[in-house]
Amino acid sequence: MKTLKIIKIGGNIIDTEAVLSSFLKDFATIEGPKILVHGGGKLATSLAQQLNVDVTMIEGRRITNAETLDIITMVYAGKINKNIVAKLQAHGCNAVGFTGADGNTIRSEIRPVIPIDYGFAGDVVKVETALLELLLNNKNTPVFSAITHDGKGQLLNTNADTIASEVAIAFASTYVTELYYCFEKQGVLRDVTDADSVIETITSMTYQELKNSGVIVAGMLPKLDNCFYALQNKVAKVCIGTPEMLFTTETKHTTLQK
Amino acid sequence: MKTLKIIKIGGNIIDTEAVLSSFLKDFATIEGPKILVHGGGKLATSLAQQLNVDVTMIEGRRITNAETLDIITMVYAGKINKNIVAKLQAHGCNAVGFTGADGNTIRSEIRPVIPIDYGFAGDVVKVETALLELLLNNKNTPVFSAITHDGKGQLLNTNADTIASEVAIAFASTYVTELYYCFEKQGVLRDVTDADSVIETITSMTYQELKNSGVIVAGMLPKLDNCFYALQNKVAKVCIGTPEMLFTTETKHTTLQK
Repeated sequence: MKTLKIIKIGGNIIDTEAVLSSFLKDFATIEGPKILVHGGGKLATSLAQQLNVDVTMIEGRRITNAETLDIITMVYAGKINKNIVAKLQAHGCNAVGFTGADGNTIRSEIRPVIPIDYGFAGDVVKVETALLELLLNNKNTPVFSAITHDGKGQLLNTNADTIASEVAIAFASTYVTELYYCFEKQGVLRDVTDADSVIETITSMTYQELKNSGVIVAGMLPKLDNCFYALQNKVAKVCIGTPEMLFTTETKHTTLQK
Repeated sequence: MKTLKIIKIGGNIIDTEAVLSSFLKDFATIEGPKILVHGGGKLATSLAQQLNVDVTMIEGRRITNAETLDIITMVYAGKINKNIVAKLQAHGCNAVGFTGADGNTIRSEIRPVIPIDYGFAGDVVKVETALLELLLNNKNTPVFSAITHDGKGQLLNTNADTIASEVAIAFASTYVTELYYCFEKQGVLRDVTDADSVIETITSMTYQELKNSGVIVAGMLPKLDNCFYALQNKVAKVCIGTPEMLFTTETKHTTLQK
């Protein structure tokens, strides 16, 4: 089986234009089939402020009312996604921008309102791989923004980490799938105040220990849960670190293992 | 050869949600390969006002500075395009949203700054049909917003009527292409104050006469020039009218003929 890389970039890479440009230039050089998934960064929050739309976060997740959904759709699927696609094209990477609505690639359902009503937030139900595979075989690179749909005409805000893991899982029977979560840190840190204290390998067993001993900070838990969920569902490799981990073996990063 | 319908909808259809929803429900029922092209409507102007970005129009065309380009990208490629795609999906039409940057489908070049500097406005250079044809054969329906790219990383604002005619022309050697410009009027009017005075057929010859005698108002000239340009480049059929012309033979509309 061929290898398919699914690479997710977070807010901190998107927020700084020079960092994003540099990443995209490197990303374009990655050979073989690949899919990029991007979050939203601070742009959506700053547009919401300009438009006097309140931003409410609970447990690190945005409450998505109708106005917020419009803002997210404009910023994620419009401005960020299309600029990424145009830049990748300039580097010879034949990118195609996607939300889950496009080609019905990712269908989700609105999150139950109990215990917390997150508004127009969607949990992934099904990733349709056929169209994406057609594009990958055509040497196109799908670029996903973190928006899905419910199949009934409603767009839904969906966590980008989750989209990346669900896409990786969906392709795990047709490709050897590798999932890379790129952010500003070199990986999961043993000590958040020490950027160098990267935990290079976490297994399901050591994950439990690290959780129990409080070493892993709360914000990392959903990301790591996504990682182990992917591993349990036949994703071959899952790594967390800076984008450099994609291009050199000399950069520390965290590798997750079953 | 199979028939391919390229259907462009203008601002007035997009601006009213009930009208747009009703159109999309009908559009989904059109059999055979089809491509939808949409303009932007008033949403971009109203967002610009909310963000205190000046909107300058010269000869009916928007001057696109960097801030305006961001707004257009957010509104056209984000909010409008993705909501259209989600609604079409709900009606069983497997839509995929596009700008010209996606898949490098429409490359343009920045319009010469003389005599008027339109800013980030692009004139179409090349429509790449291969990816679109792959999607059409896969029973997908491409949905284009009026944004293209220059291949060097820059998004450009491009007239939606022009996108529709250029796409129709590009496919004219592989399909019998039919081009439909849908707007709020029944067609080109002999008397703008009389909605019923539709000119049912305009040929290149009668077009000259209608221009010379001042019957056709200035705003219609670019649209009609696009129509005749398409006809001269092997597009089989070009019509202007309300969306109803697509679904019934009993609605008056204007048909252009070489």
